[in-house]
This record gives sequence, C-alpha cells and structure tokens, in this order.
Amino acid sequence: MNQTNNRRSFIRNASFGTIAAISIPQIVSSAFAAAPKGKRVTIEKGDTILFQGDSITDSGRSKNGVAAPNNAGALGNGYALMATGELLLQHPDKDLKFFNKGVSGNKVYQMADRWDADTIAINPNVLSIHIGVNDFWHTLTNGYKGTIETYIADYKKLLDRTKQALPNVKLVICEPYAVLGVKAVDDKWYPTFNLFRKAAKDMADQYNAPFVPFQAVYDKAITQAPPAYWTPDGVHPSVAGAALMARTWLEAVKG
Amino acid sequence: MNQTNNRRSFIRNASFGTIAAISIPQIVSSAFAAAPKGKRVTIEKGDTILFQGDSITDSGRSKNGVAAPNNAGALGNGYALMATGELLLQHPDKDLKFFNKGVSGNKVYQMADRWDADTIAINPNVLSIHIGVNDFWHTLTNGYKGTIETYIADYKKLLDRTKQALPNVKLVICEPYAVLGVKAVDDKWYPTFNLFRKAAKDMADQYNAPFVPFQAVYDKAITQAPPAYWTPDGVHPSVAGAALMARTWLEAVKG
Repeated sequence: MNQTNNRRSFIRNASFGTIAAISIPQIVSSAFAAAPKGKRVTIEKGDTILFQGDSITDSGRSKNGVAAPNNAGALGNGYALMATGELLLQHPDKDLKFFNKGVSGNKVYQMADRWDADTIAINPNVLSIHIGVNDFWHTLTNGYKGTIETYIADYKKLLDRTKQALPNVKLVICEPYAVLGVKAVDDKWYPTFNLFRKAAKDMADQYNAPFVPFQAVYDKAITQAPPAYWTPDGVHPSVAGAALMARTWLEAVKG
Repeated sequence: MNQTNNRRSFIRNASFGTIAAISIPQIVSSAFAAAPKGKRVTIEKGDTILFQGDSITDSGRSKNGVAAPNNAGALGNGYALMATGELLLQHPDKDLKFFNKGVSGNKVYQMADRWDADTIAINPNVLSIHIGVNDFWHTLTNGYKGTIETYIADYKKLLDRTKQALPNVKLVICEPYAVLGVKAVDDKWYPTFNLFRKAAKDMADQYNAPFVPFQAVYDKAITQAPPAYWTPDGVHPSVAGAALMARTWLEAVKG
C-alpha cells in the first residue's frame, strides 16, 4: 500500500470510524451556540413554572386531580420532572412551584382547547411550551389535514392569547425534534418536518423567548450512542433522552 | 441594655436567626466528609445496576412485568430514576442497564423473601440497598415486633447470601433517615432510630461498601428550606428531596 492509499485509508477511517467522545456539557453548549444568544428566562422567588406540551412533556404524569405543585406523580417521569428536581435542589430559598400539564397526542389546537383550565388558571410566571411533533406526525398516521401554515397560525394565536391573559409571563419555546432513522421517523418526515422546527424558532424570536434546541442536542448526542439509546422510537425520549432534555432546558433559565 | 446583654442577644440571634445559604454541592460533600472516605464503586462498561429498598426507592414504579432495563415507568419517579438519568447521560458509551426493584412497605425480611427473583436473577454488578425505616417505623404503627437486633441479623444474612450468589457484586449501602418534627416522625423515633442508621453504616464498613449518608444530607438541607420542602412526611422525599438523594447517591459511584 503506498502513501496515497494510506492517506485515503486514514481519511476513510476518520470519517466513518469511532467518533471522539465529547462531554454532555459540550453537546448542550454547542447546541445553544446555534440558538439565539443571550436569551434566558430568570426564575424569581415565588415563581410558578408550567410545562406545556404533548406526550414528551406528559411522560406518564398522573391526571387524577392533583392540584398541588411539585408533586412527583403529577410531573411525570420525563424532562419536566428532572428539570424540576434540579431547580428545586438549586434554589431551596425560592419557594418555586412547578406544574406539568402536557397531554399525550396534543397538537397546538388541542392544547388551545384546554388552555384556560390548564394554563391561564395556573397563572404561571414562566411558561415552557414544547409542541409540534404531532402537528406533523399525525398527517402521516392519523389523516390529520393541518399544514405548516395551520401550525404557525394556531401557535401564534395561542401565544397572543397567552400574552393578553398573562402580560408578564416569561415564555420558553422548545424545539420539536424527530430523530431520523429510528422506528417511527423515516424519510417521509424530512425535509417537511424542518419547517415545524423553524416555525418554533421563529416563534421564539418573535415573542422574545429563549429557544431550547432539542433537535440540535439530539443530533449531537447520537454521535455518542446509537439513536435508540436517546429515543427508542425517534420521537419519545428514553430516560437518557429525558435527562439530556432536562439538562438542555435548564440552559434556557437562570436562577 | 448593657454590653453583656447585647452580647447575649447577639449569640441568641446567631443561633436561631437566618442561617447563611450554602450550596447543594457543599451540603453533599460535607455530608460525605463524615462518611467512610475513599470508598466509591466504579461503574464499568456493560454493568447492570440495581436499586433495592422500600417505598423511598420504589417511588411509584410500574410493576406490570416490565423486564427491560432503563424503563422510565419501571424506575419510578424518585432518586433511582434521577440517578439513572444522570449516569446514562454521563456515560453514553458504557451500555449501562438500570433496574429498580424497591417495594413499598418492605422491611429487610420482606426484601429477603423476594430476593431470588428481584435481585439474584437480575445478576447486578452494582447493587444499591436502602432499607431500614420500616424496620423501626412499623414497631410504632403496625405492631411489628422486630428489634434492632432483628434488623442487623436479617441484613447480615441477606448480604452474606448475596455475596455467596454474586461474589463479584459491588455493594452500595444507603443510610435510612427520618427527619424529626415532620408529620410521621415525632419524638418516639429518637434516639432509637439512630441505632438503625448506625447499623447500616456498620454494614457498609463490614462489607467494604460505600455508605450513602442520606440523614446527614437531610440534616443539612433543612437549614436551607423548611423540612417539609425536602420530605412532606419526614420519611418520603419530595421531588426536591429525591433530587437531593440522587445527587448524594451519585457521590458513591464513579464512572
């Protein structure tokens, strides 16, 4: 084998071989480097923090009328619980109150249907929203007829309504994500699904909210372990994925 | 008021007044400073890690025959889930497998009754045990007749049996804790309950296992927020308490 072949072989190995381990803080911070800079929500003493969204936020939470904040069962077992635990641990002096009102299967318009009871009535100081995967996914699986324009229009209407009812609410907008090649997520998703990701980012910009770049974080995480390690079906997080999302979400807030 | 009175007043205020905020890493590290030094369990590639114990470990886990590791529902929503999330996040290259087999209400002898199926059959490389609060509590509430001697004898027998079946297992022994003055935990608990804490610590020493000082951590945490912030009944953790326990438990292992 001559030098040229050696070099080609080296390049090939470098491209397809083992990828260097990078730490999770590096993954999270490099994902944020591509997100709008400097926008973070400040958590103040006495704040109520509400997580809204679909099944990814819901994550098996108990819906049996638990009204109290910071209730483990009512927070589910996903990123909302893990981020809550971390903030309660970091800020025992702040009397923070956390709620999770994510509901499996929700698209924006379904979230809007329950918004008065599940968001406005809670009167959050900080409102985190993670919505959009079903707004696309259900066009493939459930015969849903909504388009990207529906998603954008419904989302804007919901945020305007929220700002009107809760003028001082601090919004956090999370990126819908889908990990290509894992179970539920095939080539039919892309590039169309990118429009939903971009729409959420635009929403964050327009409403001056921090944007939580979940897709960017998953895209980096799958260089460190097989995609199914982070999300068994491409949409829902594993425990590892939930921990990754919690860590990422926490970058959008400061105590 | 003369100087002497002023000084007395200052001393009184310093003792009962506002206590300076200390950070959670400081709380955890100072609790470990009082624990046996240098003993940490190393987590290796491919390891299976099993959490065993009572309701504090169980924490609402699904028991509907979930056999797969790293399943969010089967891990509950307490410290076992949170510690699992953190280790899976930190070590995506290690192919770690986590199980939680805590069962609400268990005392040592009840854990022993299900040990073959719930521990030996899982063949863990790392086995974390947190047991003892019911071994005392149920003498007050359930007419249980066991004593500290019962606890020690049952616990030793269980650990000997474990070492025989799983000679290479790495043990982690967690301290049973009870926060005095919160709901379920009144003056009847102390000083007797201290014997159970000491017995668990002795067990850790005798079996050369790291000891996870939960009581010391709670005792420090309640200087930063009211006791019920960490444990609503003195025995079971809140979400904040579970996050605190996960952080503490993680100090006993190294990746």
